[in-house]
Amino acid sequence: MTKATVLTGITTTGTPHLGNYVGAIRPAIAASKDANVSPFYFLADYHALIKCQDPEKVRQSSLEIAATWLALGLDTSNAVFYRQSDVPEITELAWMLTCVTAKGLMNRAHAYKAAVAENEQGGENDPDKGITMGLFSYPILMAADILIFNAHKVPVGKDQIQHIEMARDIAGRFNHIYGEHFVIPDAVVTENAATLAGLDGRKMSKSYNNTIPLFEPEKKLRKLINKIKTNSLEPGEPKDPDGCTLFGIYQAFARPSEVDEVRKLYADGIAWGEMKKLLFEYINDHIAPARERYEALLQAPEHIENELQEGAKKAREISVPFMKQLREAVGISRIGA
Amino acid sequence: MTKATVLTGITTTGTPHLGNYVGAIRPAIAASKDANVSPFYFLADYHALIKCQDPEKVRQSSLEIAATWLALGLDTSNAVFYRQSDVPEITELAWMLTCVTAKGLMNRAHAYKAAVAENEQGGENDPDKGITMGLFSYPILMAADILIFNAHKVPVGKDQIQHIEMARDIAGRFNHIYGEHFVIPDAVVTENAATLAGLDGRKMSKSYNNTIPLFEPEKKLRKLINKIKTNSLEPGEPKDPDGCTLFGIYQAFARPSEVDEVRKLYADGIAWGEMKKLLFEYINDHIAPARERYEALLQAPEHIENELQEGAKKAREISVPFMKQLREAVGISRIGA
Repeated sequence: MTKATVLTGITTTGTPHLGNYVGAIRPAIAASKDANVSPFYFLADYHALIKCQDPEKVRQSSLEIAATWLALGLDTSNAVFYRQSDVPEITELAWMLTCVTAKGLMNRAHAYKAAVAENEQGGENDPDKGITMGLFSYPILMAADILIFNAHKVPVGKDQIQHIEMARDIAGRFNHIYGEHFVIPDAVVTENAATLAGLDGRKMSKSYNNTIPLFEPEKKLRKLINKIKTNSLEPGEPKDPDGCTLFGIYQAFARPSEVDEVRKLYADGIAWGEMKKLLFEYINDHIAPARERYEALLQAPEHIENELQEGAKKAREISVPFMKQLREAVGISRIGA
Repeated sequence: MTKATVLTGITTTGTPHLGNYVGAIRPAIAASKDANVSPFYFLADYHALIKCQDPEKVRQSSLEIAATWLALGLDTSNAVFYRQSDVPEITELAWMLTCVTAKGLMNRAHAYKAAVAENEQGGENDPDKGITMGLFSYPILMAADILIFNAHKVPVGKDQIQHIEMARDIAGRFNHIYGEHFVIPDAVVTENAATLAGLDGRKMSKSYNNTIPLFEPEKKLRKLINKIKTNSLEPGEPKDPDGCTLFGIYQAFARPSEVDEVRKLYADGIAWGEMKKLLFEYINDHIAPARERYEALLQAPEHIENELQEGAKKAREISVPFMKQLREAVGISRIGA
């Protein structure tokens, strides 16, 4: 058992879009086939509750994310793919960790501090106005997600490094008090995570409402791509591919030789309408097979559930005995056992 | 099902003493036989972790408390007697509630504010110095303890009223967002909970290290009672029974007619040594049968465990389907179900 456990959670609050695909899903699917690592991917539905109090959204998002990852060929013979809420040891561990976590540590969390700063800038008397305990203590749940499987590596964007540092801190504190139970996880920072611009030219993100869903049906996909904002250069005028949303998306999907060709088309003054057509066709061809599998999975959701149940089973083969060990360590055990 | 559910937790961080018995255990044991209510009593081992990071202490305390309650005749055919940690739905619910709890509510908790005040008075720069997230978010776990069984009534001392108010607030918030799932619990304030003075005359309490354990062996019990602090009045001098530790303890156990007799002995100037002997013999006779059962239970701890497992089973007959309902409510459910 020298394989590194690599863990990634996906918060179930939206529909996967092209930006998610390029930045996170595609590399994770590729990694799922790497026999040298032991990948753990989970639907972070208990994290979703922090941000989203609309049950139908959480439910629908879980369905769409699970279907997306499976349709894209996630290798569930190597990766453990599960729903966070199917592993109750995670919230149980979260409480254990809560008892060893300094409140001061949570006070320093970026997300919390940003929310306080926003209140203060807004002239709010109560700096904690509108802030829930979910937002405040979320790094503890995240630590439990990681530590319950003794994950070695957690791929994160730069904005998430602090959460891994907190998980390390909490794990170290627990180990110090109760003995060496936890692996101290390492953040794997994806320095140049691919990002795409969205419809309005800003970073494609659910919060900007500028996304192109990955498995949008053909007609809608065309419509959305046609809506992408461009500058007002006329057909025939040379255009700069760099910084152009259309080109950026194309580049994220096409082979280098194809990208070079399109670069030439820009120099030659391709019309925006033409480029949109070209982009739509490329993306559409690229995703069509996975989209078909996606649609089929949505028609037979029991297949998705079966995969998640299989994943939960594998996850709990680890979490259940480990939780037993942790309970013993903190002084909770059956009497006379 | 019109019976009121009455819930009480016992934090597993110490050995039951005469003060616990008189103030909390004896009334709870009596209530366990009241067929008109549905009592839930639990070993609050996940609360214990907040205060106690010594696993052996938590383990030993759980054993002693369970053995004590059973030895005293707890009616487990009516009362549900379980270990908090055997009901994982509690920590799961705690997370759900965390997501709907305002941080501001926790900021206002008396226990947290007292800890901050102590830091500030000590000239500490960091008001949160030494404060764990366990101490800070403990009212949420307590809300989960209560709400998972939709308890109607929670008997508390005055210092605990705020926790019940917080549980009501959290329950109301959850109901408002997700629909009416929780009963809003009522605090039942025991205005005149019996308290005893300890060896040094202050309130008998683990934190003063002045307790007389309930099931101390005969010799040790005699020794401890002999150590109780009295004034320096000589034999023959009339003594005031009110405010006297010895009399207070006697009064908590004896019948009114017996109490009146001892009152006369005080007026007649009973020697402190005499009174200690009288008190020891009374208490010892009173608790001897239960102490024998207690010792027998400690010799056969599997009986204790069986009782707790039975209790957990009854508890989970409620918590498991209720958690399923709550998951559905927040948007967490099996796909295609």
